[in-house]
Amino acid sequence: MSEEDADGDEPAERDGHRDVEHVVAEVRARVTPDEDERRRLREVADRLMDRAETAATALCSDADVLQVGSTARDTWISGDRDIDIFVRFPPELDRETLEEYGLEVGHATLPEGHEEYAEHPYVKGAVEGFDIDVVPCFRLESATEIRSAVDRTPFHTRYLQQRLDDDLAGDVRVAKQFLTGIGVYGSDLRTRGFSGYLTELLVCEYGGVRALLEAAADWQPPVELDPEAHGHTTFDDPLVVIDPTDPERNVAAVCSSENVARFQHYAREFLETPRFDLFEPDEPAPLSESELLGHLARRGTTAVAIRFDAPDLVEDQLYPQLQKSVTGITQGLNDRGFDVFRSTAIADETAVVFAELAVSERPAVERHAGPPVHVRDHAEGFYDTYADDADAYGPFIEDGRYVTERERAFTTARAFLESDRLFDVGLGAHVETALEDGYEVLLDEEVTALLEAFGTELAAYFDPRP
Amino acid sequence: MSEEDADGDEPAERDGHRDVEHVVAEVRARVTPDEDERRRLREVADRLMDRAETAATALCSDADVLQVGSTARDTWISGDRDIDIFVRFPPELDRETLEEYGLEVGHATLPEGHEEYAEHPYVKGAVEGFDIDVVPCFRLESATEIRSAVDRTPFHTRYLQQRLDDDLAGDVRVAKQFLTGIGVYGSDLRTRGFSGYLTELLVCEYGGVRALLEAAADWQPPVELDPEAHGHTTFDDPLVVIDPTDPERNVAAVCSSENVARFQHYAREFLETPRFDLFEPDEPAPLSESELLGHLARRGTTAVAIRFDAPDLVEDQLYPQLQKSVTGITQGLNDRGFDVFRSTAIADETAVVFAELAVSERPAVERHAGPPVHVRDHAEGFYDTYADDADAYGPFIEDGRYVTERERAFTTARAFLESDRLFDVGLGAHVETALEDGYEVLLDEEVTALLEAFGTELAAYFDPRP
Repeated sequence: MSEEDADGDEPAERDGHRDVEHVVAEVRARVTPDEDERRRLREVADRLMDRAETAATALCSDADVLQVGSTARDTWISGDRDIDIFVRFPPELDRETLEEYGLEVGHATLPEGHEEYAEHPYVKGAVEGFDIDVVPCFRLESATEIRSAVDRTPFHTRYLQQRLDDDLAGDVRVAKQFLTGIGVYGSDLRTRGFSGYLTELLVCEYGGVRALLEAAADWQPPVELDPEAHGHTTFDDPLVVIDPTDPERNVAAVCSSENVARFQHYAREFLETPRFDLFEPDEPAPLSESELLGHLARRGTTAVAIRFDAPDLVEDQLYPQLQKSVTGITQGLNDRGFDVFRSTAIADETAVVFAELAVSERPAVERHAGPPVHVRDHAEGFYDTYADDADAYGPFIEDGRYVTERERAFTTARAFLESDRLFDVGLGAHVETALEDGYEVLLDEEVTALLEAFGTELAAYFDPRP
Repeated sequence: MSEEDADGDEPAERDGHRDVEHVVAEVRARVTPDEDERRRLREVADRLMDRAETAATALCSDADVLQVGSTARDTWISGDRDIDIFVRFPPELDRETLEEYGLEVGHATLPEGHEEYAEHPYVKGAVEGFDIDVVPCFRLESATEIRSAVDRTPFHTRYLQQRLDDDLAGDVRVAKQFLTGIGVYGSDLRTRGFSGYLTELLVCEYGGVRALLEAAADWQPPVELDPEAHGHTTFDDPLVVIDPTDPERNVAAVCSSENVARFQHYAREFLETPRFDLFEPDEPAPLSESELLGHLARRGTTAVAIRFDAPDLVEDQLYPQLQKSVTGITQGLNDRGFDVFRSTAIADETAVVFAELAVSERPAVERHAGPPVHVRDHAEGFYDTYADDADAYGPFIEDGRYVTERERAFTTARAFLESDRLFDVGLGAHVETALEDGYEVLLDEEVTALLEAFGTELAAYFDPRP
């Protein structure tokens, strides 16, 4: 190291280091549950586990019960109140019996609970302010033999329980809080971010949250991690973390390249200027009507929205369909010359495909290129068709092809969106059905009608951040 | 041939044949000079050839004189009045002496003549209503040794004189008249069509005008003809006719793919419905103001024109420069989102780049995509630049890159065309100079100001034909 470095950079770097450590330690203190919170959770969990075990072994002597998830691994964020109880049955049981037993144990454990359905049906209920799931699964030798995704969970819990000490568990909490703060925590298909298991693996792999952030700041996707060095499959994802319990699975498969980039961005931002607000989700104030109109005037774009009743789907089904529909409608607009500047989907009870157009009107004519003149049969057919069309200009010849200028089907974006041609674009199946039941096209200042339900989403749209 | 063919198609085909032959014969009769016209031309040509020979041999005993061009080959269209006299000097002469002798012979032959300049200076004059050129050249053993394009002409004349009998010469006249009628006769760089020599070679090669038309109707460009079967070079042109006097030259090099296609189109049209009007150039009536405004209203496009003083160039220099400028300006408009629907250049004393726009206005913002977030140095530089820019939206992340929405330089096509950025596009050198001296941008109904000078050209623009 040169003297200049020693004199100049090192003290500054030390300051930087101290700041990062300071903020991390502070956040860690906030998100770590205290003794009281742990004890209350432990008491409820133990009581319910006992109940579940009694009910389960009464049905099947080979059954056992274990707690999974972040409250089992001591990586939950203070204030989280999820207790996941898995009831394991021997793999000889047929699926139908497993589901029947599972529900029976669930109801015995949670007399006030109700049934929900994921891969199997299971029972969910609230006890003393905690949210409890009682989920049946098969007890298998290895995670590669699983019959459904829930069978994998006990393996994940066991793997991490062996590796997470108190120190790493604390860092996992900080990492989860950071990912939550920047909006990329969760592997649901709305978020397409980092799951809890993925976060825990990343903190383990890098040996702490700070090392993770420093590594992420320099990631060159595709990033490939394989904690157990047993992967043998190639994945086409920006972030690949081979599941330590299953060499054929990428734990980060659902994580979008946007969210990987977002994590990199905020990791750099935090390391450069450590601050607490990155750990808190930042929900903007709802946009007012005058602010919305102000943005449109300043930007000079034409806002357009398709509003319809949201299909009755769980979010993991709804959001991929909405995203497909946004892509399809954007393509449909672009193909007809209505250049989409930016677009998004928003949903609540109503769903909205919202787009800003750079071009919302087109001339009455469009170019229509025919075959090369030398392809005689096709060329003659094309020429004869349009030579007799009094509404078309041409045909004339350009680049050796016949070209005609004919009437354009849609001269305004609204006309296209209100036509049946909207159904030619790629739409999510349930979105298509919902649109068939009716929809409304809002243009320009008409989109202010969206503010009541979606003021916050529109505020975020007009203040786009990494 | 099946019986059905014999019964059905043949009589119709015979009728078709008779019509084609009838029209061709009629046109041939019209365009063939009568005995009187030939005699008068012969008299003038002989007299001037004598004068030229006397003057030439006085200067150089080895010189000789010959008549070239269509009037020498008996392929001129009745009414054409061009006599081309070439004075050949031995190749030992240096170029300077050749030019000096050439002008001396020219002035002796045409005492009233004036000097012009092509590859050499030469003398041009009018005698008894004929337009006479007296051009000096070198007498070489072979066309491959030529020093300038004019040296090749005597070889062309000799080659064709050996092959054109009266019948083929008559068909050459018909072919030239047809190409003139459909607007593709001439190898100047405005027309980029078929030269006289090319036309004569094509008629020879196919054995007549009708065979040429039938072949052209079925051409699959690139079409390659090599009458002397001595070509050994590859050309990247839609029509290749290897010069019988020079294996390395494509006689049709200047012929554009548009004009090849146009010839194919009208050949088919003529063979299907033989008619006389195809042999007459069709100049439309000038467009009126109300017609022009009617077209714009019906088409819904925005007309725009750049008007400037035409550079003082011969057409062969002017038109390629105008074409380059149209391409460059079209590209410049398209690049900025002002979609050009169709464009053209027109010139007289003023020159005009005329374009119809499908989009003439853009929003106040434009998307500006930065580097991928993972390219840390560049990404951080980009982010810091725009994060601090109060006028820009974002940066946000899309497809793993930073994107910002910043102020657009030009929101109207007029603003771009009136700015210095116009000079960033590809322009012909003399057009660029002319624009630097000043130009005017006309928009929408302002383009009616062009009608006085260019009513015919605009009429053709709004009635585009093959």
